[in-house]
Amino acid sequence: MNGLPSSAAPAEPTGELTLSEAASLLSGADMASTKALPERGIPSVLMTDGSNGLAMNLPDFSGKVPATCFPTSSALAATWDPALVGQVAGAIAREASAAGADVLLSPGMNLKRSPLGGRNFEYYSEDPLLTGELAVGFVEGVQGEGVGACVKHFVANNQETDRMRVSADVSERALRELYLRAFEEVVTRAKPWLVMASYNRVNGTYVSEDERLLTGILREEWGFDGVVVSDWGAVDDRVRALRAGLDLEMPSTSGASDAQVVAAVDAGTLDADVVHRSARRVADLAVRAAASGTHRGESSTTAPSAADLAITAAERSTVLLRNEHGVLPLAPTAGVAVIGAYASAPRFQGGGSAGVQPKQPAGSIVDAVGARHAGTVEYAPGYADDGLTRDPALLEQAVSVAAAADVAIVVVGSPESAESEGYDRADLGLPEAQNELVAAVAAAARSTVVVVISGGPVRTEAWRTSVDAIVSTGLAGQGVSLGLASILVGDADPGGRLAETWPRELADTPSFLSFPGEGGHSAYGEGIFVGYRGHDRTGGEVAFPFGHGLSYGETRFEDLAVSPSASGWSVEVTVVNVSERAAREVVQLYVEAPDHAARRAPRALVGFAAVAVAPGQTTRVRIEVPRRALERWDEAAACWTLDSGAHTIVAARSSRDAVLRHEIDVVGDDLRMPLTADSTLVEWLEHPAVGPALIAAVTEADPSGRTTGMLTNPMAVLMIGGLPIHRLAVDAGNALTLDLLDRVAGSQTD
Amino acid sequence: MNGLPSSAAPAEPTGELTLSEAASLLSGADMASTKALPERGIPSVLMTDGSNGLAMNLPDFSGKVPATCFPTSSALAATWDPALVGQVAGAIAREASAAGADVLLSPGMNLKRSPLGGRNFEYYSEDPLLTGELAVGFVEGVQGEGVGACVKHFVANNQETDRMRVSADVSERALRELYLRAFEEVVTRAKPWLVMASYNRVNGTYVSEDERLLTGILREEWGFDGVVVSDWGAVDDRVRALRAGLDLEMPSTSGASDAQVVAAVDAGTLDADVVHRSARRVADLAVRAAASGTHRGESSTTAPSAADLAITAAERSTVLLRNEHGVLPLAPTAGVAVIGAYASAPRFQGGGSAGVQPKQPAGSIVDAVGARHAGTVEYAPGYADDGLTRDPALLEQAVSVAAAADVAIVVVGSPESAESEGYDRADLGLPEAQNELVAAVAAAARSTVVVVISGGPVRTEAWRTSVDAIVSTGLAGQGVSLGLASILVGDADPGGRLAETWPRELADTPSFLSFPGEGGHSAYGEGIFVGYRGHDRTGGEVAFPFGHGLSYGETRFEDLAVSPSASGWSVEVTVVNVSERAAREVVQLYVEAPDHAARRAPRALVGFAAVAVAPGQTTRVRIEVPRRALERWDEAAACWTLDSGAHTIVAARSSRDAVLRHEIDVVGDDLRMPLTADSTLVEWLEHPAVGPALIAAVTEADPSGRTTGMLTNPMAVLMIGGLPIHRLAVDAGNALTLDLLDRVAGSQTD
Repeated sequence: MNGLPSSAAPAEPTGELTLSEAASLLSGADMASTKALPERGIPSVLMTDGSNGLAMNLPDFSGKVPATCFPTSSALAATWDPALVGQVAGAIAREASAAGADVLLSPGMNLKRSPLGGRNFEYYSEDPLLTGELAVGFVEGVQGEGVGACVKHFVANNQETDRMRVSADVSERALRELYLRAFEEVVTRAKPWLVMASYNRVNGTYVSEDERLLTGILREEWGFDGVVVSDWGAVDDRVRALRAGLDLEMPSTSGASDAQVVAAVDAGTLDADVVHRSARRVADLAVRAAASGTHRGESSTTAPSAADLAITAAERSTVLLRNEHGVLPLAPTAGVAVIGAYASAPRFQGGGSAGVQPKQPAGSIVDAVGARHAGTVEYAPGYADDGLTRDPALLEQAVSVAAAADVAIVVVGSPESAESEGYDRADLGLPEAQNELVAAVAAAARSTVVVVISGGPVRTEAWRTSVDAIVSTGLAGQGVSLGLASILVGDADPGGRLAETWPRELADTPSFLSFPGEGGHSAYGEGIFVGYRGHDRTGGEVAFPFGHGLSYGETRFEDLAVSPSASGWSVEVTVVNVSERAAREVVQLYVEAPDHAARRAPRALVGFAAVAVAPGQTTRVRIEVPRRALERWDEAAACWTLDSGAHTIVAARSSRDAVLRHEIDVVGDDLRMPLTADSTLVEWLEHPAVGPALIAAVTEADPSGRTTGMLTNPMAVLMIGGLPIHRLAVDAGNALTLDLLDRVAGSQTD
Repeated sequence: MNGLPSSAAPAEPTGELTLSEAASLLSGADMASTKALPERGIPSVLMTDGSNGLAMNLPDFSGKVPATCFPTSSALAATWDPALVGQVAGAIAREASAAGADVLLSPGMNLKRSPLGGRNFEYYSEDPLLTGELAVGFVEGVQGEGVGACVKHFVANNQETDRMRVSADVSERALRELYLRAFEEVVTRAKPWLVMASYNRVNGTYVSEDERLLTGILREEWGFDGVVVSDWGAVDDRVRALRAGLDLEMPSTSGASDAQVVAAVDAGTLDADVVHRSARRVADLAVRAAASGTHRGESSTTAPSAADLAITAAERSTVLLRNEHGVLPLAPTAGVAVIGAYASAPRFQGGGSAGVQPKQPAGSIVDAVGARHAGTVEYAPGYADDGLTRDPALLEQAVSVAAAADVAIVVVGSPESAESEGYDRADLGLPEAQNELVAAVAAAARSTVVVVISGGPVRTEAWRTSVDAIVSTGLAGQGVSLGLASILVGDADPGGRLAETWPRELADTPSFLSFPGEGGHSAYGEGIFVGYRGHDRTGGEVAFPFGHGLSYGETRFEDLAVSPSASGWSVEVTVVNVSERAAREVVQLYVEAPDHAARRAPRALVGFAAVAVAPGQTTRVRIEVPRRALERWDEAAACWTLDSGAHTIVAARSSRDAVLRHEIDVVGDDLRMPLTADSTLVEWLEHPAVGPALIAAVTEADPSGRTTGMLTNPMAVLMIGGLPIHRLAVDAGNALTLDLLDRVAGSQTD
């Protein structure tokens, strides 16, 4: 489907394109590729889905090209390891390239506003810094293989309900600090070839038609020079979208939208330069892809096999949430009962366009544990294969198998139907049949380990404190069984840490009252308090906090040091493995910023590092915290700003487990809005220079003292101090005139 | 200050006003009155503040005219008694009239979006139905005395932070169902003479300049024919405001804005008809006020004395929140210790423009209890007079006095500085000195009663379950001491019920994460889930729920019957007093509406009745529930709608104490949005008539079956079903064309 044979060297595009040629480049040739203009030296570009593995449709759409199935982004995010994400991305890109694709339509990097988001399994985290770092790793991994990455879905595409029409009504501050933030990081640092404009609207305007987002912020502020492609079918009005900066509409419209573009130019409602500018970007992409194509595969000789990497990634994605009485790792001689139908046929990915046809089956957890574990391993399904249906006979059998074992491992998880592109989850609960099984096994077994397979948090209230251990595998790809087994038996340390909060109840989540909206609008009512920022702000209990995860080894954090650097601050922490086991640890840095100028999250992630420390060893970790990580977006001034004052840098194991603290005195911007006639009386009076000058000028202009008396009377100022000052100046009987205000403001150099 | 002597009969305004005469009527003559045009027969109108009593400034602004000080609206709301509110309003109006005023700038009726709202004490409730009923009572009470009422602050003026500039960013549904709802009720039923446009913006537009609110909704939808007056200083742009429907700007601008109006007409940017229309309204108001003036006072001969009414109102505003071990009413012989400086000098109103200079002092709670109670009454201040300062000596003395008594009554409350117009509360906590006192007394005393004096909920976590009784007086006006004493000794039954939720923690309140906003915007993130609607939606515990309050008597609810009526439903409940004490009871009706078409509050108040039942007596209560009470605002259709299906009517003692339930089957509107090209594929497919017709038409147009296959493939529909259907029709290779859609839609009569 590629316009040129991949062996041909691409030519530089020749000459000026005609309007109709240019317009033709701006929509797809079919479901997956752009149009070629061979006579102009412009090849076609073939794009493919692929988030946790190549998800390329077979030519007849009867299925997908078999590919290595890696953990979903939600699972991989628990590694907190951009390098590992990059390795996975590279492996996916190599398979994509081998299948003829030029562009991988990944990474998905939307923020998890609610744990109910139907595509959350395709995304990384509720935190923008973690999301950004992992997405940078992914893009670099893909593009290092000569394949283009396409970051998506830009932006605020955080729900499936009414996803192709809904307006995300969100404050500029929340957009900047959260929803745009990760995109900003990846666009400026990793330079993806494409950005995908999402289906939804933002504050009423379709992203695909939002010039401020697609051109003002993306290109002018961030310097993006690639192609903006629509999500498939996201263009509502082709001409408006083009004007806003949406270069490439996908998929094909069989020429219909090209004709609209040409007609608009002919009618004088669209500038031909706009058409040529976008066509040039698409042509550049095509040439770049073709040029890269000749070098693809060069790096692959040193890469681990994709199948091995899939297992390692699964292992590293595993989070040990709870581990009482040393039940894990399994004692080598323990008699083990593995229970749950998902232990026989585990889920390992979500549904929708990102679904992969795995090259190798995920196998059975029972078999994998059996192969690794020295003791006996029994199995009982416990519930029906669909994960939903209660079966008293299976339950009874499972309890009796569990009662006979030293350790019962109950494998549960959200059913396949709960997690897919296309709809949001209805709640966080596991099927009742599974909760009932856990409770029954926990009551009967000597020790109980629960393994949760899911694309996001599940409700654990029914049994959390009555089981000995809880392990979250995420949706771990084809390596799920082997990766999990190696954690359970202790061959590897569970280094995974939660990339999103596990709440106790859905109702505790900050977006609960407003998600997913109605009538075409989704109000982002929690503002900047998404995920742990909101949980920490209300202070309510959570099941497991953001960043949480246990190791088998034991580490100590020591000697937190913070020093200024060119771009912000350098932070160092020593991690000491004080145990006799190898340990993986994720050092998490949070800032506690002062609340005086604007409300802040109690803690916000500003840096992290995942490290492996051998028994008895010590390692000094250095983490750069950029200035931006401490800044906030000021709504009134419409810019980033750094507040002056004491900030505390916290080295932590989760957003709620602070280990070391170091206070720094930040000299910020001291952002001060220029005083205008719309500034309030109090804003004028409280200005250190203008305030006294105003009183002096009024006193001089008003010998009666009436106006001065008003401005210096606390009760009067309480009543009228909030008035935009020009309203006080309207009263012609008042010494406070617009002229006087101009004079006072003008005399200040501040 | 009135343009005509009140004895003169008002003339009909004569002839056409000149433009400049008309413009002159559109702004104040001074701080409180409109301009007269004596030669045109148009007198001046004198307005005065007065929410819990006349709050008229003395001519030299050195203080206020002494007046009877009633409970604040927040306290009075706890009576759930519109008739009593009307009596109070009538008494205020008589004092206003006697002082020469034509218009009382009340009632304040904003919804309590957050318990932190600085003017919450001037408002009634977090519920719009309760607010509306009480405001109707107030307006009828005032206007029954020939004085005009002015409902305020229209609308969404729910915070003091940046109050003169902030934009309340709120969904249309929340506006309609909550913030506008009470205004709709009072405007359509009680016909206030004036509506006051508030300071704030709504969704970016100053209310004073919002034509949709001031003209479209207020006049065209609701039929308001009075005067829209600005809050004092709320006009930002006089010409825009006038065009939007703001008739009267207050206070005087010394002619500056009149000149702006004339200049705009001269420049052709303002229609002279607009000026004359508003001038006519102001003139009509003036003539009506003058005509009423000659009849004022006629009703007052039968009214109770204002001083007596102030005591009755205080008594009836009292809410008994907790009463364990029968500690209240006081046993006649009990030795009582009254503790707390506020028992000596109780707070009884809030700060700001509504403050009243009371005619009679509130007196001391100690003295009032002493006068009513047969046993001994000792007093100890316990904390400093300011309510804030901890004093170990006072604490120690109080504990020893408490330990010696049978019952210790600790009087606590928010300090005066916590509640005022001009700023919002910072938190819900009582001063630490007071919490410490309560804990110490509770530990030492045989029985402890806590009396809370406050304009809103306070945090009671520190001692709620360790004391025997809790009484809330609100800010009860000059009758606070006598009213409270009569409750404590049992001369009256505490019939008050909370008009707002008392949360456990501020962080539990639905607006917590978004209140009060920043940078000029306050996002109403909780949407329709304000107050108990939000608490009930999350299901979190509260200290005391909306509607809660105990009686000394004991009642039973029986025989809930619901029958259709012309305007909705008639509901009857029998209340039986099964005790040997007189009891006041508030029968509260809530609806549990189906959630299928849109999210609903788990329970919403739809009616109520306050009744007094003698011992052993039975009364049948009839409450009309209008259709509107069960309707919801549909965002997409932009109209009210009644959903079909089972609704449960609940007779309850609070939003969380359902006593009787009755399910009704509602035949609603079955609102169905017309299908358009922007409707989604799924909306087309799910339409009972259009869906099959669409499939048939596509099948006919596309013999290949390709498009039909797509439309009937569940996985394909999952992926593309949310697309506005016109986007599918853009593809010229698709059998689904815009022509076909037109044809299919047109063939349906539905």
